[in-house]
Amino acid sequence: MSDGKSGLQLRSLIKSSGELEISLQNVPTPEPGPDEVVVRVEATPINPSDLGLLTGAADLATAKASGTRDNPVITAKVPEAGLKAMAGRLDQSMPVGNEGAGVVIKAGSSDKAKALMGKTVSMIGGAMYAQYRTVRVNECQPLPAGTTAAEGASWFVNPLTSLGMTETMRREGHKALVHTAAASNLGQMLNKICIKDGIPLVNIVRNKEQADLLRKIGAKYVVDSTSPTFMDDLTNALAETGATIAFDAIGGGKLAGQILTAMEAAINKTAKVYSRYGSNVHKQVYIYGSLDSRPVELNRAFGMSWGVGGWLLTPFLMKIGQADGQKLRERVANELKTTFASHYTKVVSLQEALDLANLGVYAKRATGEKFLINPNKGA
Amino acid sequence: MSDGKSGLQLRSLIKSSGELEISLQNVPTPEPGPDEVVVRVEATPINPSDLGLLTGAADLATAKASGTRDNPVITAKVPEAGLKAMAGRLDQSMPVGNEGAGVVIKAGSSDKAKALMGKTVSMIGGAMYAQYRTVRVNECQPLPAGTTAAEGASWFVNPLTSLGMTETMRREGHKALVHTAAASNLGQMLNKICIKDGIPLVNIVRNKEQADLLRKIGAKYVVDSTSPTFMDDLTNALAETGATIAFDAIGGGKLAGQILTAMEAAINKTAKVYSRYGSNVHKQVYIYGSLDSRPVELNRAFGMSWGVGGWLLTPFLMKIGQADGQKLRERVANELKTTFASHYTKVVSLQEALDLANLGVYAKRATGEKFLINPNKGA
Repeated sequence: MSDGKSGLQLRSLIKSSGELEISLQNVPTPEPGPDEVVVRVEATPINPSDLGLLTGAADLATAKASGTRDNPVITAKVPEAGLKAMAGRLDQSMPVGNEGAGVVIKAGSSDKAKALMGKTVSMIGGAMYAQYRTVRVNECQPLPAGTTAAEGASWFVNPLTSLGMTETMRREGHKALVHTAAASNLGQMLNKICIKDGIPLVNIVRNKEQADLLRKIGAKYVVDSTSPTFMDDLTNALAETGATIAFDAIGGGKLAGQILTAMEAAINKTAKVYSRYGSNVHKQVYIYGSLDSRPVELNRAFGMSWGVGGWLLTPFLMKIGQADGQKLRERVANELKTTFASHYTKVVSLQEALDLANLGVYAKRATGEKFLINPNKGA
Repeated sequence: MSDGKSGLQLRSLIKSSGELEISLQNVPTPEPGPDEVVVRVEATPINPSDLGLLTGAADLATAKASGTRDNPVITAKVPEAGLKAMAGRLDQSMPVGNEGAGVVIKAGSSDKAKALMGKTVSMIGGAMYAQYRTVRVNECQPLPAGTTAAEGASWFVNPLTSLGMTETMRREGHKALVHTAAASNLGQMLNKICIKDGIPLVNIVRNKEQADLLRKIGAKYVVDSTSPTFMDDLTNALAETGATIAFDAIGGGKLAGQILTAMEAAINKTAKVYSRYGSNVHKQVYIYGSLDSRPVELNRAFGMSWGVGGWLLTPFLMKIGQADGQKLRERVANELKTTFASHYTKVVSLQEALDLANLGVYAKRATGEKFLINPNKGA
């Protein structure tokens, strides 16, 4: 094991010539400032949100391996159309990895920093696909005794996003919610939160296997968007739960509009008075993903009290402020082995993450398939 | 002139058999309660929002006149497809007319009601296409001395809607706004407000004549959506004004998405850092009309900080509360001859409103064409 003065860091570079290059670089570990610590990273997940930065708009069918076993390199072509969307990052070598966990091996001079020495902490802040990471104290969350780095690695993106959804629901005055692509890792976590907190959750999935998976973990309302009775099933579930807010990972196509239409139909089942502007109940769909990149199509068969918008974790956390955000973090840390437990199909080293066979699996973002990187595996 | 104990009232009926019938009925005037007054209606406009109730989903190409000169009747067919959307009002004879003005001829027992006796007042509350209307005191706004009923008739729908737009802009933290179908009566009013209040306003119109009309009344930013340079023109106007909120009367098609795309492009003209989620500046389009009934199509080329939603005057007024709403009403009353002046192409009686030739003109909702009904004309 090295002394932590330098270590490998994964880098993603998209050249203006249209080539993606993923490689490992040995970089010096920055000395911690007073309010900073150095963490030996032991676990960091590959989330869909990391893949956006890792592989960008590259066509992975063109991916090639080069370099050595210890220092592998992956290259791939970025199609002309995709290159335009990458304009802001061209020719900049970018570190990757939103979240992770590890052990504090060096601390800055402040009391807060010193208090973390030797502790296992979860971290946020990017550049986690690295052996060592110097982070600010407020980017760390100490883990309860007995919780491992692997258990604490996926502590932020999925847990805070799913908690952000139920928090947004409460803060905007709704009492139940809808989630799409609901069998995802995030969707399963959301089910656990909602079951624990007694929040009615309508899960929309795209096949029977996903429906079965969710029912097995206790989901009560599961509707299949590929079923011929989808709109009726959804309307009934919405009438039963009273859900008037949805979080949608699909993005494109007609689904957001179908959800609003079914919400309005569910509300009108009990409406007594004619209003040509539709119900006065505000119906909201937040789009937080883009599994379908086609345009959103809204037929507006749902009155005038509606909204569709983008939703992201970071602006949400900024809006609720640090104190309320810290409460959410602490809940996650305390429930990492239960509500917020993540399951990984494979644990890889940094070098193994650059193996074409592994890339081919984790880049698919398949439901149930999730990789964990241990940057110090074998080190 | 009658004693006001009864009078004519316009009624719109859509039968489940698929027939629209517009007629006049002689109805007794309700006695005023303690907090009510009886108003002799002298002016009430035909707004686009009234036409929705007046003619519903009927196909006016099939309209036929019957009845007598004093008691005319219009009938028309409602296509099968439209009938479904009318389900809530089928076989109910509906009074029509959102707003109007007239003279108080009888008052209830409360001091507030008595204080209005003999005054010229503006009114809201529906059923204004009638010779007499019993209304609550808080549905009346006394007009300043020298302001006529004709000048005060359109005091609510367009003035409060356009003021509601600039108020929403301020309350949601924007500093400039965009308006579509901007040469409408409402759009011209919005220009007058913005010029008076020093708010930068980007007007989107659909032809050169409309652009000329707005420039003539002092509009600074006018872009034509049919111009080949539309997106560039819009982006430049947005960059110059900093507008990040739009009010859209068109509704369907790509326009809402184009506005968001241009807003994001305008913001990114000055952005320094790469963010693959787009800018953090919230961009909002409120759809308040449906001149284009096609689905809304959003290509989401504008990051994650965006919202599209329905906007209506009534929920807005409920949200801001009575005290703030009253301030807006009083501003309107005081500026009815200037900022909020309406222009009418024709003043008609109730019988003349049921003349097929007149219906053919006002039902077109053409820009610049607006009818005023004087229910006591010739009475």
